[in-house]
Amino acid sequence: MATIADIGVAAALNLISAFIFLIAFALLRIQPFNDRVYFPKWYLKGLRDSPTHAGAFVKKFVNVDFRSYVKFLNWMPAALKMPEPELIEHAGLDSAVYLRIYLIGLKIFVPITFFAWAVLVPVNYTNDTLELQKLLNVTSSDIDRLSISNIPDKSQRFWAHIVMAYAFTYWTCYVLLKEYAKVADMRLQFLASAKRRPDQFTVLVRNVPPDPDESVSELVEHFFLVNHPDHYLTHQVVVNANKLAKLVKQKKKKQNWLDYYQLKYSRNNAKRPIMKTGFLGLWGQKVDAIDYHISEIERLSKEIAAERESVVTDPKAIMPAAFVSFKTRWGAAVCAQTQQTRNPTLWLTDWAPEPRDVYWNNLAIPYVSLAVRKLIMGVAFFFLTFFFMIPIALVQSLASIVGIEKAAPFLKPIIEVKFIKSVIQGFLPGIALKLFLIFLPTILMIMSKFEGFVSLSSLERRSASRYYLFILVNVFLGSIITGSAFEQLDSFMNQSANDIPKTIGVAIPIKATFFITYIMVDGWAGIAGEILMLKPLIFYHLKNFLLVKTEKDREEAMDAGSLSFNTGEPRIQLYFLLGLVYATVTPFLLPFILVFFGFAYVVFRHQIINVYNQEYESGAAFWPDVHKRVIVALIISQLLLMGLLSTKGAAQSTPFLIALPVLTIWFYFFSKGRYESAFVRNPLQEAMMKDTLERAREPNLNLKGYLQNAYVHPVFKSDDEDDDDYDMAFGKKEDDVLVPTKRQSRRNTPVPSKISGGSSPSLPETVQEHHEP
Amino acid sequence: MATIADIGVAAALNLISAFIFLIAFALLRIQPFNDRVYFPKWYLKGLRDSPTHAGAFVKKFVNVDFRSYVKFLNWMPAALKMPEPELIEHAGLDSAVYLRIYLIGLKIFVPITFFAWAVLVPVNYTNDTLELQKLLNVTSSDIDRLSISNIPDKSQRFWAHIVMAYAFTYWTCYVLLKEYAKVADMRLQFLASAKRRPDQFTVLVRNVPPDPDESVSELVEHFFLVNHPDHYLTHQVVVNANKLAKLVKQKKKKQNWLDYYQLKYSRNNAKRPIMKTGFLGLWGQKVDAIDYHISEIERLSKEIAAERESVVTDPKAIMPAAFVSFKTRWGAAVCAQTQQTRNPTLWLTDWAPEPRDVYWNNLAIPYVSLAVRKLIMGVAFFFLTFFFMIPIALVQSLASIVGIEKAAPFLKPIIEVKFIKSVIQGFLPGIALKLFLIFLPTILMIMSKFEGFVSLSSLERRSASRYYLFILVNVFLGSIITGSAFEQLDSFMNQSANDIPKTIGVAIPIKATFFITYIMVDGWAGIAGEILMLKPLIFYHLKNFLLVKTEKDREEAMDAGSLSFNTGEPRIQLYFLLGLVYATVTPFLLPFILVFFGFAYVVFRHQIINVYNQEYESGAAFWPDVHKRVIVALIISQLLLMGLLSTKGAAQSTPFLIALPVLTIWFYFFSKGRYESAFVRNPLQEAMMKDTLERAREPNLNLKGYLQNAYVHPVFKSDDEDDDDYDMAFGKKEDDVLVPTKRQSRRNTPVPSKISGGSSPSLPETVQEHHEP
Repeated sequence: MATIADIGVAAALNLISAFIFLIAFALLRIQPFNDRVYFPKWYLKGLRDSPTHAGAFVKKFVNVDFRSYVKFLNWMPAALKMPEPELIEHAGLDSAVYLRIYLIGLKIFVPITFFAWAVLVPVNYTNDTLELQKLLNVTSSDIDRLSISNIPDKSQRFWAHIVMAYAFTYWTCYVLLKEYAKVADMRLQFLASAKRRPDQFTVLVRNVPPDPDESVSELVEHFFLVNHPDHYLTHQVVVNANKLAKLVKQKKKKQNWLDYYQLKYSRNNAKRPIMKTGFLGLWGQKVDAIDYHISEIERLSKEIAAERESVVTDPKAIMPAAFVSFKTRWGAAVCAQTQQTRNPTLWLTDWAPEPRDVYWNNLAIPYVSLAVRKLIMGVAFFFLTFFFMIPIALVQSLASIVGIEKAAPFLKPIIEVKFIKSVIQGFLPGIALKLFLIFLPTILMIMSKFEGFVSLSSLERRSASRYYLFILVNVFLGSIITGSAFEQLDSFMNQSANDIPKTIGVAIPIKATFFITYIMVDGWAGIAGEILMLKPLIFYHLKNFLLVKTEKDREEAMDAGSLSFNTGEPRIQLYFLLGLVYATVTPFLLPFILVFFGFAYVVFRHQIINVYNQEYESGAAFWPDVHKRVIVALIISQLLLMGLLSTKGAAQSTPFLIALPVLTIWFYFFSKGRYESAFVRNPLQEAMMKDTLERAREPNLNLKGYLQNAYVHPVFKSDDEDDDDYDMAFGKKEDDVLVPTKRQSRRNTPVPSKISGGSSPSLPETVQEHHEP
Repeated sequence: MATIADIGVAAALNLISAFIFLIAFALLRIQPFNDRVYFPKWYLKGLRDSPTHAGAFVKKFVNVDFRSYVKFLNWMPAALKMPEPELIEHAGLDSAVYLRIYLIGLKIFVPITFFAWAVLVPVNYTNDTLELQKLLNVTSSDIDRLSISNIPDKSQRFWAHIVMAYAFTYWTCYVLLKEYAKVADMRLQFLASAKRRPDQFTVLVRNVPPDPDESVSELVEHFFLVNHPDHYLTHQVVVNANKLAKLVKQKKKKQNWLDYYQLKYSRNNAKRPIMKTGFLGLWGQKVDAIDYHISEIERLSKEIAAERESVVTDPKAIMPAAFVSFKTRWGAAVCAQTQQTRNPTLWLTDWAPEPRDVYWNNLAIPYVSLAVRKLIMGVAFFFLTFFFMIPIALVQSLASIVGIEKAAPFLKPIIEVKFIKSVIQGFLPGIALKLFLIFLPTILMIMSKFEGFVSLSSLERRSASRYYLFILVNVFLGSIITGSAFEQLDSFMNQSANDIPKTIGVAIPIKATFFITYIMVDGWAGIAGEILMLKPLIFYHLKNFLLVKTEKDREEAMDAGSLSFNTGEPRIQLYFLLGLVYATVTPFLLPFILVFFGFAYVVFRHQIINVYNQEYESGAAFWPDVHKRVIVALIISQLLLMGLLSTKGAAQSTPFLIALPVLTIWFYFFSKGRYESAFVRNPLQEAMMKDTLERAREPNLNLKGYLQNAYVHPVFKSDDEDDDDYDMAFGKKEDDVLVPTKRQSRRNTPVPSKISGGSSPSLPETVQEHHEP
């Protein structure tokens, strides 16, 4: 049993290590040669050039202005200074709203922590139950003295916990409701923002029925000319360009190799580079590498041209889906929200995702197939959650000494070496589990893709909810009740509905110290690691050293990364869950949660401003999920408190808790009805207002020209074939269309824009602090 | 324990009594003086005149054509003869689809019965488990020998039941899916039927936000002129005319009394009728009844005029809701399906219910209030279901001799009389429960009204689902596991999720004979009673004898009644549940279910053709509920079979059943996604097609004039004030607009319409069979 002193030591250690990380970060980030690692976003936006262009040689690599070392924590206020409207313009609404998750963590838990310490800690502490038990040789730590465990059975003091449970629930719901309203408002404002965007006018139509007499394109045109005669403008049929995209990717890879060999040759003119054509260049025929790659690229270029031709002309490559654009936002909003034909599985219309957000591969899956895929993935996820230990245990048994000797007897002499033996015994079993957990988000993402979602944002949302369930079952419940998930499931099936919360509730106070440690190691240290960006740092310098020849190469060597909603959000939710569950039970845990939320908020705000490059913009479409999961955590905490109290003999007071989950569930449906549609539907009034404004401002706008190519498959986008890498096509060519940043506009107009007002001068500090010493 | 012979005797008795009912019905219905009791629908449609108009005096009252007595069952084929399209025209889609519920009962259970008897009965019968147990003095009946109880524990024969469970599930789902498709098709066809109807063009707008500068009417007009500029036509603001309606009703009542006294006076001119003005005419001032009523009516007329004035002008009487009509069906379909403003709880648009279907009182409830009402009613219904025995037990204890003597000691001498005492002891406690059960549908309807639904059809649907839950808990579970619902709930809470199906499953075979008796008494006899229409028969003749003076009075004396979905459908669902649960357990029960469905189908078809007068037409909007409840029954049956088998030691085979509920739930979501939207949304293609057709056919249609008064509160509808009773206004003045019958058109065009084709001549038989002998 850990005492408060133990926890204090652990906290100090974790804080020190986090501090070391921060100092390392502070030192590394102001070195010019790391500039592209720590400020990639500004480069991608074209607002920052390599510092290597000018100045003395040393200055190119090392920051010699020692004053900047003194202010080594000044990134924190800098990160906090950018006002939210500017942040939305700079990084998109998704990122800005993602930050608000940490913020509501603070909003919820600051008052809860205060009241829990002001009310519950004294109530718990002024008992001597645990002292008495100590005499009976029951072990307990000082933390438990601050927790509900210290209250004797059947005490009237449990009323304090019940009242506080009501207060905490009320406060959490209040914050959630306010926040839902705020985010819904931000989303609508964002969608109705002054800029024209192709997805405002466009609807994705799927499951176009086959017609023997007409091509898909004709069919779509006729259908919408008939059924939306006043509004239909144009459409873009979806083609199956997956093979083409693959060829282009191959060509790009060969081109890279060619560059590499040419570089090698230019350095050492004496010897033409030689390579083998077989697997990984390990065997096969020996050929001249440069010639080989030139011929390969030529072959691929021809194939690409042929494929490009066939994709456009072959009716089989045309998928029964299309992006249909309308003359007005109103027309698109109407089409997206209505049912087109009697058969609700044909001519499915949905608001088109932003072009960057489209997941092209899934656009042509018919309804029945979707339903079957959903079922299969549901069953698969169930087994993944509850039985994932079985294959891992198998691998682990194989990875044991005996297992390996059995499977591959010829390895026996090597394995018997003492050092190797200990490595195998010590690491392999753990590595199997670790590998699985590392690949879990990828597995979940593949499952979501199989389910047939058509936008990257919905793929990530789906993966996130599955990951959350996995964490809930295997991390939260798994830590509280030992045993594999399946054993838990089995025991739950054999327990009564009354007993399950009791079983878990009783174990809750005991596990407080474990979760405190978990928060420090996974939360605090994890975030400090996030800001240091060790992996991108190392990879960038490696690439820079080995491959980079031109500015363009250097650009590609940057790995900005992005907020990955599918793994990040479920992890935050775990902290909400822990905070809410322990708020009434062991308030001692709450400050640790607070530190996590505060620290994470600052770090991620910095990362969003300077590093991450979002792949898409969904307009905060994930918020209903976030809201729902916090409410789930709230209900779990209420049920567990009921279970715990009922074992404490507080039979008198426990029934007063029954209303809580009922009210919370009601609150969920209330808030869902009130705000969810802002994330699903599109108000006509807004659309009409925008249309009218635009008509007045730009009466001669050529909308057809504007929309013509907005939803072309990325492979067809660029004319320069060497460039048509996905990210580039999206990141660069669309950026100016999609999420314009103020920086860019400032280039043309030197006066500061109105939104940021007086605070905008704060930004150049971050950007230019080591350019103008 | 009932043997098969016992059941046979009971069945014979029930059949004989049903047969007697049928003979009574056959005799009564062909007497001309009962014509208005057994054929009110034809009168209400104006297609049949009183047979009293012509012929000999005797013939007016008694049918003297003895040939018609011989064919006393000929109503049955007559009822079956009317083809479905004609039935829809005649009685509306709701009624026609309601009949299909019985039909799918037959479709599901005929093959199931056949296979259960062909496979399961032999499998069960060729064991001697129960024979052996009899030696051990365990009682069992012959019915149990045909049931699953006769199979020894751990037998391999359970595989037969598992395979059949799969087969039955597959078949049920198949029939349900086919039927869902069929009904969805019928609904869309009906909605798109050739006739123009006001609700095709109209949308109900609720929660119009208050505006200080504009009246509700101006606000609505401006909003829709701005946001639906090309489609908005006109609107009708909803007024709070509840007080006016009350006054009109009062006046009508007084008018009735006036008629009564005038009649009395005309019969006996000697004495002016005298009445007392106080409560129920029992005390108060004595006045001349005719003069009093004339003056009262005058006063009310004035009040009505004043109220009518004030309702139209007083801004407080204007509710923030309106019926908005559009120029095209397309415009209305678009508006009904889209969200209008950023705030999803303002400007709520919904497809307008048919004018007859509107529940006017609930049109002005704001969103928050709706959410709170829903919560309150949810909690109230929970207590009603699980704790309804508590107040009844209280009443019962009060209604006992001791209770009454305590509460009202002065009654003691009366109560102590032996006869009265035995009445009180024997009847009162039972009557309390009976009264509750009789009033339960009314209570549920009041709860639904409080919840704020805006159409009668949705009120009935809501009441139906609550009634179903009540029946499920208190009739089905209550019969299987004795004890009050609350005791069951308590024991379920204390049992594990595994044990609940076991507890119930084990009791299932034992209760087979009980449910067979229940089916015969409640099902068979109940339906035979339905066709005899004893209550309307008696009331009609009483009224006819006492009150009727003119043809109009006679019309009003008719009580056609209607299919009451809120009580009828949940009862049918109980038979689905019983059939599916016992299909694999005790196939002996299945033929009884079959007889019920077949008999009920014929009887209700007859009633719908000749008697019932539907109050509204919802276009079969209830079908998704029917579908859902059959699937719930299916899942319950699967879980109970799993529970039963697991207690039978069939541990090997039981796991194979787990996939069944998973697949069934998946099937539910699949079919819901596939067809439900046909009952909720309105395809634009259909609307556009209708619009185009209409524009071509009637280019000069004055739609505004047509729609102007369609959604006026019924109180304002009639010019003849004496007539403005709700039912009359709806039943008569709208009928020709809303649900046109072919009869009517045939009056003008003697050639049969195309739809019914050759089969149409069959109908006059039913109608005119005793007019042309």
